[in-house]
Amino acid sequence: MNYSNQQPTREPSAEQALVGAPGLQPTSGPLTREELQLAARNHSMPLEMLRREVTPPGLHYVLTHFDIPDPDASSWHLRIGGAVERALELGIAALHRDPAITVPVTLECAGNGRSLLEPRPVSQPWVLEAVGTAYWTGVPLAYLLGKAGVLPDAVEVVFTGADAGVQGGVPQQYARSLPIREALRPDVVLAYKMNGADLPPQHGYPLRLVVPGWYGMASVKWLQSIDVVRSPFTGFQQQPAYRYQSTADDAGTPVTRIRVRSLMVPPGVPDFFTRRRFLRPGPVMLEGRAWSGEGAVSAVEVGIDGTWLPAHLDKPVGGFAWRRWSLPWVADPGEHVLACRATDITGATQPLEQNWNYQGMGNNVVQRVSVTVE
Amino acid sequence: MNYSNQQPTREPSAEQALVGAPGLQPTSGPLTREELQLAARNHSMPLEMLRREVTPPGLHYVLTHFDIPDPDASSWHLRIGGAVERALELGIAALHRDPAITVPVTLECAGNGRSLLEPRPVSQPWVLEAVGTAYWTGVPLAYLLGKAGVLPDAVEVVFTGADAGVQGGVPQQYARSLPIREALRPDVVLAYKMNGADLPPQHGYPLRLVVPGWYGMASVKWLQSIDVVRSPFTGFQQQPAYRYQSTADDAGTPVTRIRVRSLMVPPGVPDFFTRRRFLRPGPVMLEGRAWSGEGAVSAVEVGIDGTWLPAHLDKPVGGFAWRRWSLPWVADPGEHVLACRATDITGATQPLEQNWNYQGMGNNVVQRVSVTVE
Repeated sequence: MNYSNQQPTREPSAEQALVGAPGLQPTSGPLTREELQLAARNHSMPLEMLRREVTPPGLHYVLTHFDIPDPDASSWHLRIGGAVERALELGIAALHRDPAITVPVTLECAGNGRSLLEPRPVSQPWVLEAVGTAYWTGVPLAYLLGKAGVLPDAVEVVFTGADAGVQGGVPQQYARSLPIREALRPDVVLAYKMNGADLPPQHGYPLRLVVPGWYGMASVKWLQSIDVVRSPFTGFQQQPAYRYQSTADDAGTPVTRIRVRSLMVPPGVPDFFTRRRFLRPGPVMLEGRAWSGEGAVSAVEVGIDGTWLPAHLDKPVGGFAWRRWSLPWVADPGEHVLACRATDITGATQPLEQNWNYQGMGNNVVQRVSVTVE
Repeated sequence: MNYSNQQPTREPSAEQALVGAPGLQPTSGPLTREELQLAARNHSMPLEMLRREVTPPGLHYVLTHFDIPDPDASSWHLRIGGAVERALELGIAALHRDPAITVPVTLECAGNGRSLLEPRPVSQPWVLEAVGTAYWTGVPLAYLLGKAGVLPDAVEVVFTGADAGVQGGVPQQYARSLPIREALRPDVVLAYKMNGADLPPQHGYPLRLVVPGWYGMASVKWLQSIDVVRSPFTGFQQQPAYRYQSTADDAGTPVTRIRVRSLMVPPGVPDFFTRRRFLRPGPVMLEGRAWSGEGAVSAVEVGIDGTWLPAHLDKPVGGFAWRRWSLPWVADPGEHVLACRATDITGATQPLEQNWNYQGMGNNVVQRVSVTVE
């Protein structure tokens, strides 16, 4: 078995893409031990941390397909090659000498909300919290591609990480591509710092890609090589994985940008087990964050027992970072259901009922929070 | 409803202690939505991080009963009172002027391994990874208790955190006690730094207790007050919670020190979904860490297909920090089962079959890792 960045030795099926266990279909059955193992490894952001514009270290969501690599930064090199005028090989010290940018970016896992789908695609069983916002610092990808010189017949750029394993029966290193036009955007960054500190191991140390506006799978961690290619990349994580499909046989469409979404800080205090919320009567500030990879968030409405009210929006902090919203509420005794719904400048808005798809991707259903006021 | 540190208004039952949902018994049934929500909130340490002596930020396990508080450190105060000669109230700046110590400590959740029990106590469904090691810096608790002057009839010290909510039907702030003799140990620390940096929010910012050798529930986070008391504390998290019980009606015994345990870095690479390991034939260094709250680890054995071999032990880095072990292995093609088993100087060793108890506490069964060599 070879874990290098080879093309698949077997043709994976759509089911394999989803679960890595051939034949396992979306299910209405109980959560499996394998899903629990994934939930224990991959962590999400407790929703009370929506209070913070920047997600503190260790609370940003993390999804790792295989193991977290532990590379030696002193011997680590990034290779840039393929359809370029000159191949490059750069150590971390060289990258630090290149011009740097810092961009605030909200990243969300494409599979966020998967466990809420019915039937449930069997994979990482996210609930609602697979999100986080950080300031990423590093070299613009466009700058390095300019140094290398992209040849005219290039169509995509392939990014390969050091993380290796087996998925859907296919030995692989994690790899994803971007179209040339996306790769040359000025805000796409090869990041070596997160919130001003060295990348933590689980976020791609010593170097990762960050693609603002796209779901997290595009932002390849533990980056080893960048290959400019003349035909579309067909590696496992590009297809069959990360596609919107209606059935296993549907070729589907690729998952790309983050759909508009808002989440709320659950008010009051929780019950340990049920996470149901308890609140005293009186004034309370409902607040949360909203984001979209398709265009700026233009409105957030808050639903209180089915009545929608417009929330106040704070100034945006960046094109692809979440935007704070708030609405004062006077809580009266009884049972209440709160909700929030964002709309972006393209007119896209969050659905009230979830849109099902075979891999459980791009879920952005309205969040609902049950509150007991007493 | 009052969420201050009151005594319970209702008498909680043992079932309520366990699950916060009266009447929910240990089960052989499927994982519940409530357990999945807890797994999504509370994160554990991916086992490959056992390579590191110090767990990197964000990878140390975290269990939060309620929400992560977000206190304003500038107005935050620690109150020390009760059976003392003089009550104290200290801001964070005052605490920074007191003498500081730094201690390396392995913390493990008392419920680690709970999801592996059969029947399964229904609560936070840890698999194996609820552990981590950090260097904690702060003021020795004994120093501050000395300043306050403990009165002769004092028997325990009660620690109350800012985290509030409902568990087992009981509104509460998280609170736990220590016997006086434990509270006066020289290595028990009121920590304001973790690995040299300010405490992250999820680890108790701005101040927490760290009790080396005890399961994590003793190390109260977001510390607000310390009360020296003249009779044993009976708050919810002291009893009925965190006790070794055989049935719901058994008064049980309190959970205190960490039972001897070892864990292994799973060798090779994983399958994404099953986490099964794949390895090439040839030499590989098996390694991991071992710890005990009862006394130093004195031996680790590695099981290879049922044959136990003694591992090499590195020097210990502290009385209550894990100790690295390693054993070279030549992997031959086929299916193998690897295991590790630690023993401490008290003679305690890890069981080959798990010891069941009603709350799923203190699990330290031998870890087994299935590996395909090909």
